[in-house]
Amino acid sequence: MKLNIALLPGDGIGPEVVEQAVKVVDAVAVKFGHQVNWTFGLTGAAAIDEVGDPYPESTHEICMAADAVLFGAIGHPRYDNDPKAPVRPEQGLLKMRKKLGLFANVRPTFTFPSLIDNSPLKRERIEGTDLIILRELTGGIYFGERGRKDGGETAFDTCTYTRDEVRRLAKLGFEMAMNRRKKLCCVDKANVLESSRLWRETVQDMEREFPEVTVSYEFVDAVAMRLVQWPSSYDVLITENLFGDILTDEASVISGSMGLMPSASIGIHTSLFEPIHGSYPQAAGKDIANPLATVLSAAMMFEDAFGLKKEAALIRDVVNQSLAEGLVTEDLAGNNKAYKTSEVGDWLAAQVS
Amino acid sequence: MKLNIALLPGDGIGPEVVEQAVKVVDAVAVKFGHQVNWTFGLTGAAAIDEVGDPYPESTHEICMAADAVLFGAIGHPRYDNDPKAPVRPEQGLLKMRKKLGLFANVRPTFTFPSLIDNSPLKRERIEGTDLIILRELTGGIYFGERGRKDGGETAFDTCTYTRDEVRRLAKLGFEMAMNRRKKLCCVDKANVLESSRLWRETVQDMEREFPEVTVSYEFVDAVAMRLVQWPSSYDVLITENLFGDILTDEASVISGSMGLMPSASIGIHTSLFEPIHGSYPQAAGKDIANPLATVLSAAMMFEDAFGLKKEAALIRDVVNQSLAEGLVTEDLAGNNKAYKTSEVGDWLAAQVS
Ligand SMILES: CC(C)[C@H](C(=O)O)[C@@H](O)C(=O)O
Ligand SMILES: CC(C)[C@H](C(=O)O)[C@@H](O)C(=O)O
Repeated sequence: MKLNIALLPGDGIGPEVVEQAVKVVDAVAVKFGHQVNWTFGLTGAAAIDEVGDPYPESTHEICMAADAVLFGAIGHPRYDNDPKAPVRPEQGLLKMRKKLGLFANVRPTFTFPSLIDNSPLKRERIEGTDLIILRELTGGIYFGERGRKDGGETAFDTCTYTRDEVRRLAKLGFEMAMNRRKKLCCVDKANVLESSRLWRETVQDMEREFPEVTVSYEFVDAVAMRLVQWPSSYDVLITENLFGDILTDEASVISGSMGLMPSASIGIHTSLFEPIHGSYPQAAGKDIANPLATVLSAAMMFEDAFGLKKEAALIRDVVNQSLAEGLVTEDLAGNNKAYKTSEVGDWLAAQVS
Repeated sequence: MKLNIALLPGDGIGPEVVEQAVKVVDAVAVKFGHQVNWTFGLTGAAAIDEVGDPYPESTHEICMAADAVLFGAIGHPRYDNDPKAPVRPEQGLLKMRKKLGLFANVRPTFTFPSLIDNSPLKRERIEGTDLIILRELTGGIYFGERGRKDGGETAFDTCTYTRDEVRRLAKLGFEMAMNRRKKLCCVDKANVLESSRLWRETVQDMEREFPEVTVSYEFVDAVAMRLVQWPSSYDVLITENLFGDILTDEASVISGSMGLMPSASIGIHTSLFEPIHGSYPQAAGKDIANPLATVLSAAMMFEDAFGLKKEAALIRDVVNQSLAEGLVTEDLAGNNKAYKTSEVGDWLAAQVS
């Protein structure tokens, strides 16, 4: 099979971790007889520096022509304490999501038995946790009208949703639930927000199309509590953009394996795969960052973008091996020897072969 | 001193827990020579049933005439799965906040050494946690314009803030920080929202008025993570209404003492004190609910509304005694004898005397 992949390393540790995923993907391709065609694209602070745009048109064309996008991270501390900077790396992220129509961000949270004690939560609370948060990614208050009034003294943002946007995301949620434990939780704030009432109504109307799925409706504040109390009680959660931003990050710490969590963003034109850890600038260029989340994102890519399940399974196997044999970076090494980012990548690629 | 207190028991377990707080307040008043004047007001589902309005004008007048309001809880399962019900108990809550000008919700999170092992988090993560979340309560997307367009197919909500609203809340936050560990965290989403940029700007401008306070600016998604990872690193957090709704609930589970957490809402016309646990309808009328959060809310009332610190300290002392001696309701009793709500109230009142 021909795999056309756009490669967007981005900022911070992005380039280093993406490089390891490339090694692993190439090794898998050789083993299974696929042909990978990587096309590099500039994004983030790196792209601002070179061409003044965090998501340049040339990068967009590369993504549109690809079957899947493998993405590192975006963000640079230079921009962090300057809310008024004219161009910010994050704008590239939002532009990319919108222009590629990446309407659904898929964030699994699961535990690795060998890492469970890294969690801030007690073992008995998180054992068995295996949930997916499906976050709407191209609507809501992220993309609504915003601005100032009264000479700058008043600021406003608008959250807007259409029934079709809700349906599109919810449909994916129902379908995922059907392939899993058949439980769907619609997270909203329908006791206050009109947009949430539209979400709840729309999902209620869809229940009859998926009679086997048990649907619950929970307020976002209650879910923020229950995710910490009993994460294992959830299966698939669907929610709007801003709630999803907050809840996916909250959920990412419960498993104790944040450095390993992959994600996918499913789009109209293509789909994108990225580690959830962000650009982590403190570690950039040191060859110490953990590449496993990116490697596992590549596994999601094989499965979700190309339907290649065996390839995905093999990647997950070698990642589990690296954990079992302690072939890991310093964040996971404890008192044992810590390997470099590049050493972990080389080892994984060698194991694949 | 004359203490004019409006008493709003509300729904669910509200009436039972409030009754115990009344006993304790009355005992404290006798001991210290104060005169309490309680005036009862209808709210919530109970008020809908009787007069068709969850916050009737008569109740509002009672609150306006009082020096402080002691509140139980609002909410009834009858309304929970019907987002389209014409009148909902929660509307009473929002109306009350707006009409009383309760612009700041103060939510402390602290640990009780004897309860720390109830937390879903590991002991070493939460020991020493003592933070306050200050949530803006009468602005933002809760009170902005909202509605439908396109024949109901599109829904929108508007988040609006003025600089004065931000300043008013932030000032309280800076002042609280000055009385504590002098650390303030402004929680926003300034990388996306214009209203958040107004928050950040306004707080940045205020820094020079409080040079001793160390201010940090963190994104709401990052705070949702860090609250679970290292809650003890925070002192005072300030944030807008919706972020505050989510984060206060998340924070309430970390101490392991959710049933004990009090809160205050500071207003223009008066201030209101309430337990954070809500109406908990499953336990209503059974004399099993834990009254300690309401009793501790009464302690906050003595201190914050009346400036009576000794009275507040005495209430906290007897609460600690009840925990130490196991005079507690079933939620805290473990394998020991569980006392009734009313028995705990009687015991606390007797200890005070
Ligand atoms: C950087 C920021 C704009 C972005 C978001 O809020 O969507 C990030 O937090 C994320 O979740 O990917
Ligand atoms: C009941 C609801 C409207 C309310 C809110 O969102 O403010 C509640 O969750 C709270 O935090 O007091």
